[in-house]
Amino acid sequence: MTIELNENERVDDLLIKGYKIIQNTTKFCFGMDAVLLSWFANIKRGEKVLDIGTGTGIIPLLLKAKTEGKHFTGLEIQEEMVQMAKRSVSMNDLDDDIDIITGDVKSATDIFPRESFSVITTNPPYMKATDGFISPDDAKALSRHEVSCNLEDIVSNASALLKVSGRFYMVHRPYRLAEIVSVMKKYHLEPKRMQLVYPFIDKEPNMLLIEGIKGAKSDIKVEKPLIVYESPGNYTPEIHKIYGN
Amino acid sequence: MTIELNENERVDDLLIKGYKIIQNTTKFCFGMDAVLLSWFANIKRGEKVLDIGTGTGIIPLLLKAKTEGKHFTGLEIQEEMVQMAKRSVSMNDLDDDIDIITGDVKSATDIFPRESFSVITTNPPYMKATDGFISPDDAKALSRHEVSCNLEDIVSNASALLKVSGRFYMVHRPYRLAEIVSVMKKYHLEPKRMQLVYPFIDKEPNMLLIEGIKGAKSDIKVEKPLIVYESPGNYTPEIHKIYGN
Repeated sequence: MTIELNENERVDDLLIKGYKIIQNTTKFCFGMDAVLLSWFANIKRGEKVLDIGTGTGIIPLLLKAKTEGKHFTGLEIQEEMVQMAKRSVSMNDLDDDIDIITGDVKSATDIFPRESFSVITTNPPYMKATDGFISPDDAKALSRHEVSCNLEDIVSNASALLKVSGRFYMVHRPYRLAEIVSVMKKYHLEPKRMQLVYPFIDKEPNMLLIEGIKGAKSDIKVEKPLIVYESPGNYTPEIHKIYGN
Repeated sequence: MTIELNENERVDDLLIKGYKIIQNTTKFCFGMDAVLLSWFANIKRGEKVLDIGTGTGIIPLLLKAKTEGKHFTGLEIQEEMVQMAKRSVSMNDLDDDIDIITGDVKSATDIFPRESFSVITTNPPYMKATDGFISPDDAKALSRHEVSCNLEDIVSNASALLKVSGRFYMVHRPYRLAEIVSVMKKYHLEPKRMQLVYPFIDKEPNMLLIEGIKGAKSDIKVEKPLIVYESPGNYTPEIHKIYGN
């Protein structure tokens, strides 16, 4: 199959099931966040999964590779990213398994039926629209800052689209933990499991993985620390295992 | 000075400034939670501190030993514990520095003026009244289960008694994290700093240390992991340092 590549695009190997992904080197490329989220998310056989703000489609691709989920949908607001993600899906011959849909999470209930997904994942923009420097490049700005949608837009719409007892998985920054917990509870996505990712054992965490269950009762399992490096440049055995090497 | 000891009471050395404490071996004795809370709490020179549910008075005693706080008050509902804590205070000749007051946290605003403390600490009962086995022994039940007061009683009254920008420090169990964050935010004690205590580096955390600041904006610093043991029975250097040896 011939896949068209646009300017600045390259094909990367996902090192699992031979899957490949197209990324634009001048825009957003996936990072460890997406890899850890797809490892943290627990997808069961036959489940329907939505990824909100799917970007390159990395999360549906990894989840398709790693789980027995039945079908995966990626929702993305930027048409250019949608077209690129669709080409990645086709390149892997996964058009029956993964849909990439253009749309705004704020209108998600106009796009999908309510309570129609078993699982929703998201690797959202981490920074508030008012935090720091906003990238003049649209694609980067939208993926990093809450320009087109904020945390509450994502959580409220995820809750509307999830079945009762459905699961919500998000990767975010620890500094927003209190707000995340509060917004999830507000929309009945009760935080049930959480893991902090520490770059080194003696450093503050820089990622937060969280699972919410729609309508569950309040208690949360905090997992053991996930530590990324054992020395500078050398991953811990656990991270090697997550990356499959 | 002669200090009366009742049945089952013993005197323990706090290993700091020569301070000692009376504990009743058949009732609640202080644990690592109290030590870590007094290490985590940041008390500045001249501040007035209240400890809610002070029990043996361990937290005011440790904070007096370790900080330059001006005055410490312990509030305790059980008269027998109050009398024991008062004897510990006298034994250390700290009657001018530490007051132990009999009272119910639910009536705290009848006992103390509103907005009168710079800092409030608490090592509250961890378990809900409905969780698990309730000890038939009153003192144990009240210290472990939310029999006489619950999380919301403590947080709401702490908020009323704290000055604006005053600090609230609590040690609790990680499984209640989501509820803790939600209740603190409800009463404007914004969670600003948190540390998880892991017994071993590859185990789930069993303690949560959290700082809230009254009226602060929402963002939280999650500290590096605090790991207790490097091998079974052997504390990590960090814990040795906290215990002062």
